[in-house]
Amino acid sequence: MFTKEEYKERVKRTKEQMAIDGIEVLLITNPSNMNYLTGYNAWSFYVHQMVVVLPDEEEPRWIGRKQDANAAKETTWLQHQHILFYNDDYIQSPILHPMDAIARVLDKMGKGNRRIGVEMENYYFTAKSLKQLERGLPNAVFLDATLLINYLRMVKSDKEITMMKKAAMIAGQAMEKAVEAIKPGRRENDAVADIYHAQISGTASFGGDYPAIVPLLPAGKRTSSPHITWSDRAYQKNDTVIVELAGCYQRYHAPLARTVNLGSPTDKVKNLAEVVVEGLNEALHAVKPGLTCEEIEEVWRKSIAKYGFLKDSRIGYSVGLSYPPDWGEHTASIRAGDKTILRPNMTFHMIPGIWFDSYGVEISETFQVTETGCAALTDFPRKLFVK
Amino acid sequence: MFTKEEYKERVKRTKEQMAIDGIEVLLITNPSNMNYLTGYNAWSFYVHQMVVVLPDEEEPRWIGRKQDANAAKETTWLQHQHILFYNDDYIQSPILHPMDAIARVLDKMGKGNRRIGVEMENYYFTAKSLKQLERGLPNAVFLDATLLINYLRMVKSDKEITMMKKAAMIAGQAMEKAVEAIKPGRRENDAVADIYHAQISGTASFGGDYPAIVPLLPAGKRTSSPHITWSDRAYQKNDTVIVELAGCYQRYHAPLARTVNLGSPTDKVKNLAEVVVEGLNEALHAVKPGLTCEEIEEVWRKSIAKYGFLKDSRIGYSVGLSYPPDWGEHTASIRAGDKTILRPNMTFHMIPGIWFDSYGVEISETFQVTETGCAALTDFPRKLFVK
Repeated sequence: MFTKEEYKERVKRTKEQMAIDGIEVLLITNPSNMNYLTGYNAWSFYVHQMVVVLPDEEEPRWIGRKQDANAAKETTWLQHQHILFYNDDYIQSPILHPMDAIARVLDKMGKGNRRIGVEMENYYFTAKSLKQLERGLPNAVFLDATLLINYLRMVKSDKEITMMKKAAMIAGQAMEKAVEAIKPGRRENDAVADIYHAQISGTASFGGDYPAIVPLLPAGKRTSSPHITWSDRAYQKNDTVIVELAGCYQRYHAPLARTVNLGSPTDKVKNLAEVVVEGLNEALHAVKPGLTCEEIEEVWRKSIAKYGFLKDSRIGYSVGLSYPPDWGEHTASIRAGDKTILRPNMTFHMIPGIWFDSYGVEISETFQVTETGCAALTDFPRKLFVK
Repeated sequence: MFTKEEYKERVKRTKEQMAIDGIEVLLITNPSNMNYLTGYNAWSFYVHQMVVVLPDEEEPRWIGRKQDANAAKETTWLQHQHILFYNDDYIQSPILHPMDAIARVLDKMGKGNRRIGVEMENYYFTAKSLKQLERGLPNAVFLDATLLINYLRMVKSDKEITMMKKAAMIAGQAMEKAVEAIKPGRRENDAVADIYHAQISGTASFGGDYPAIVPLLPAGKRTSSPHITWSDRAYQKNDTVIVELAGCYQRYHAPLARTVNLGSPTDKVKNLAEVVVEGLNEALHAVKPGLTCEEIEEVWRKSIAKYGFLKDSRIGYSVGLSYPPDWGEHTASIRAGDKTILRPNMTFHMIPGIWFDSYGVEISETFQVTETGCAALTDFPRKLFVK
């Protein structure tokens, strides 16, 4: 996907950060970070696997399940001697744990007494993973390196931006399909089937990849619950439907949310949508390199306060390369207290949803910070859709 | 989805097991287990959430993110006073961790000095989650309760079997669509788009839910790597394509795998498919209550040994209710050394895939253990498809 040079550059920056943090061995278990350093790409993250970065080795090592080693050979830039595996009896076993085997590999490499960085806050590094490593390598010191690579990923290369723009094209198409598919009498799952078809078909010149989150489209009273998934209930006249989805191209994401009203919206929904669009526009307009995330949130907060609204949750987050269950990068959030300084080629999903107990509205944009401001990646009408 | 009585019965069995294991407070973070006890169902497991089971309370408590509390009210049988939340500034924050807030809640409930069971080996309970709980509740003792609920889930109720049969109907339809969609000149992603459409549309009388794993369909040389996902390459004449997918109905899964050959298969592929089908048939034929998982695996092993084949990985696992990234239940595996005794209404995915460096074959069945043997949940031709 990327040139060997781009991967090597990423590994070089990783080692620089390891030196700053005093980390002698880095164990990367977040699949997005594994992909970022090596290109590794397979749905194998449901078993234990990792990429090992050592200061004195140019190429990282991959360690995973035996039957996934061929996927590592196929998708990474690593020499085959750097692809190591453990046997299948370690898989979901009540007796054996893959980290026991991995601890032995690290010990054999002479790394058993080092300062080892692990991603403590990561879906694919369980509490037990740490316990087993600590047991297997009693002379090592374990340090939390959770966001080390995530922060390196925040500023995208031009190639990465190109990939996110492709993802955004898919997002726009899928949203167009969603607005078309949602109508009274049609079941929610049938609308989702159409959306998925658009997400995966992609365009004539490139195909779509699976987004890290399924399409979320709560309807009616359920618009108060942004993460409820679809049912097979048929849409009713007057339903408000929130659609949040992403286009995904080779693991890069461009999320997008819009709200659709079947029939004339109530004054409350109409008013809320106008407030959200105005706040979103003003916040996007404010984005420029050098400002902080909290300064952007403040623009939003003041904008909606004019109309008496208050939102007590973040309005966006850094986005890009990802695997389920989340497409966010878990670094910067656009919220009060976040002092991350915006820099060109950072990418965010700004999603200022507002939910009340019986209704809600979401209208969002994924944007790239440019040299002078920002550019939304999709060009989809920024409004409440009324059908 | 289920009656209040069925949920209460599940909670009752949970408490019985807690008493046996000496657990005074049980913190359930595996979303499948949260659903099993309460019905909770939303794509919110990418942030920290849990269900708390206490021996002296009939109803568990749900604790999660504020904006997901409405989803808990909507999807669970719990009284609203048992739905607790933490604020949004705990979300993906470099300073605050949701387990700090949760530790305070538990402490306030007077549970700070108890024997607390947590699911140490679970995607949604990170190494840091445990550290923060230990820090917040220094007088508690933390015990590993990883598979406590998973084991209770192994024997399905009749209602659960009905749901898995609906999932199996969807799986059959999706596989039919797959066999039709895979053809020379068509892109892999376009075939997946059709498969997804069938998975989510479901049938005229019930809709499909999202499976915990995306369709996996490695082609050509990539059949040696079972977990590689699709690309936008066009299928070539003579490609062998392995298709592994599931139907999903209200979070219950019925996985199914078949292999498709575009044009006449090589002798190697044809022979391997025959060996796999014969071994699968013999192993399924052997299933009956009272036997162990390893005895079933032995039947398979002997069957393929006749032809000189050896498979060094498990040939199946318990399956049912699940969330990404895996549809397996992580309890019993059909492999040497697994002494789990088969009981009626257990359900397994038997997937005896064999992969070599340049080709592979998978043909699988999801089956229910019956009073006298087993019943495959789908009725799809058990063979290599040649197109």
